[in-house]
Amino acid sequence: MPVGTVGSVKAVHVSELKEDIGAQIILGNTYHLYLRPGLDILQQAGGLHRFNSWNKPMLTDSGGFQVFSLTENRKLSEEGAEFQSHIDGSRHFFTPEKAVDIQRIIGADIMMAFDECTPGDADYDYAKKSLDLTERWLDRCLARFRETECPYGHRQALFPIVQGCVYPDLRRRAAENVAAKGADGNAIGGLAVGEPTEKMYEMVELVNEILPKDKPRYLMGVGKPENILEAIERGVDMFDCIMPTRNGRNGQIFTKQGVMNMRNERWKNDFSPIEEDGASFVDTLYSKAYLRHLINVNEILGLQIASIHNLAFYIWLVQEARKHIIAGDFSEWKPMILQNVTRRL
Amino acid sequence: MPVGTVGSVKAVHVSELKEDIGAQIILGNTYHLYLRPGLDILQQAGGLHRFNSWNKPMLTDSGGFQVFSLTENRKLSEEGAEFQSHIDGSRHFFTPEKAVDIQRIIGADIMMAFDECTPGDADYDYAKKSLDLTERWLDRCLARFRETECPYGHRQALFPIVQGCVYPDLRRRAAENVAAKGADGNAIGGLAVGEPTEKMYEMVELVNEILPKDKPRYLMGVGKPENILEAIERGVDMFDCIMPTRNGRNGQIFTKQGVMNMRNERWKNDFSPIEEDGASFVDTLYSKAYLRHLINVNEILGLQIASIHNLAFYIWLVQEARKHIIAGDFSEWKPMILQNVTRRL
Ligand SMILES: [Zn+2]
Ligand SMILES: [Zn+2]
Repeated sequence: MPVGTVGSVKAVHVSELKEDIGAQIILGNTYHLYLRPGLDILQQAGGLHRFNSWNKPMLTDSGGFQVFSLTENRKLSEEGAEFQSHIDGSRHFFTPEKAVDIQRIIGADIMMAFDECTPGDADYDYAKKSLDLTERWLDRCLARFRETECPYGHRQALFPIVQGCVYPDLRRRAAENVAAKGADGNAIGGLAVGEPTEKMYEMVELVNEILPKDKPRYLMGVGKPENILEAIERGVDMFDCIMPTRNGRNGQIFTKQGVMNMRNERWKNDFSPIEEDGASFVDTLYSKAYLRHLINVNEILGLQIASIHNLAFYIWLVQEARKHIIAGDFSEWKPMILQNVTRRL
Repeated sequence: MPVGTVGSVKAVHVSELKEDIGAQIILGNTYHLYLRPGLDILQQAGGLHRFNSWNKPMLTDSGGFQVFSLTENRKLSEEGAEFQSHIDGSRHFFTPEKAVDIQRIIGADIMMAFDECTPGDADYDYAKKSLDLTERWLDRCLARFRETECPYGHRQALFPIVQGCVYPDLRRRAAENVAAKGADGNAIGGLAVGEPTEKMYEMVELVNEILPKDKPRYLMGVGKPENILEAIERGVDMFDCIMPTRNGRNGQIFTKQGVMNMRNERWKNDFSPIEEDGASFVDTLYSKAYLRHLINVNEILGLQIASIHNLAFYIWLVQEARKHIIAGDFSEWKPMILQNVTRRL
């Protein structure tokens, strides 16, 4: 899922997302959209789909992750989280009920439960208390979800989120609790937030043994190509990550042959295509040397090219993964492709 | 001519320039390209066309205008202009010969003579001396032009530039001198640089009575839609201006019905298309309220939409002008369209 923080995937037209990148779903950030353009505008527009012209599926996070990132400017209580806007310092209060109400107004096809994203280095006691709160909040989210409906008449789903930090018994308990809700899909949160990568894989594996296999399983905020393939092998179906766009804007280009840092001198006079058999039109339209120049002189077109390229690469990668799952040779394909795509060029 | 300062028209793909905007020629800035990516890279690439994938006509300025804008960091002599790079302070020396050599390496289809762009408020004595120098430099440019050729084997033209500030006798003398050179096309420079608009029109009219009518006449650095139509009426065939892209990035949107400032509150909940019968795909793909939101939160997509829209509008405007010239009703059409496009919305 390409990430469209404030209602746009940075530097990419919706037509490019659909036709050139082949994205099937994008993510919007509740916290950012709530602040700007704000719920009034989104409601008057008829929801985010109409507002930003993206007429395919959309998912919104609950706003919790961003709110909890404002470590200095938020206060957590049983009721919810009070926080100050990073834009104008204004005070706001999110509760599980409010997170559902806001996501109803945004109108995303998939809404997320409001939870506390436990830090990756939390001790057991903190992680347990945090999970207790997340579970009480989940019940409040689900209650509100059942008593409300989409203001625009289409169907909306609500995905619960499995927390529990790096503690197997907490993760197991969380997954069982989530599985019991019978939601349309389920998410794994609180990973890729500072814990060792091996711990992440361990938790994903453990959780996916419990979550229903016939419902999409969504690993939030992950990640590098290798993280994605490892998680797919462990049963994950959905991902979101700002890495292809954000790293792209910083000059990091993912290809089938490895990773290029476009700021590197070595691309200065390499006039070959960005990627000979790349997944989008920019790959053969522009050369490595030209992209390097654009990134070097901070031209907007450089950000556009890098973003389209990397998103198209990520979509290509998961499409390939799906093909190899269907063909039954995923576990032979994975180490080969990983060796290629993780190479430093 | 859309302006592609450092080898890219900011925020616009070459495919969009060609297919969506319908640009037939773009401009590159010699000063900027000389500094970055530099002549080595451009030469190795096989010229700017190959470097930036723009395979239609291209024009480069001579670098003089930018060098003379570095008022604090340049020194003018008979030989040429010494200046310091705005990037790293390094010292460089441009001469008429060097300006031709550089433009040969860039490989633009139309190169410009190296001249002194006289300030719009120069007194007569200064303007006369400046024109004397420009005329001596023109002869040196032409000599160099004749003794060199395009390193990539295609044809390059060199346009002389008429200077003379706001003084009719200087402009007349300059135009006669330029016309006598028999170049493939001729330019009018040193206008829209601080002089009253009426003076500009007067000079354009006077100069165009002298310049050959069967060769393109290019008014440099102009301008607003009204300036362009007034100049067309006075015989001008070519324009370049950063206004559609730069003003677009600041939220100014030109339409057939008038000018919108997208930062204005009034577009906040106007969910109608940017322009119902606009000249590019962004006009109906996105709404005014969405574009306003993007500009408001500094999203890159806002810069992309505004740039494509405004460039497509400018190209539409001059295409319409051409139609009305051919139909013979330009002078009835002009006041009508001007009333519309200059309206503040
Ligand atoms: Zn991520
Ligand atoms: Zn201009």
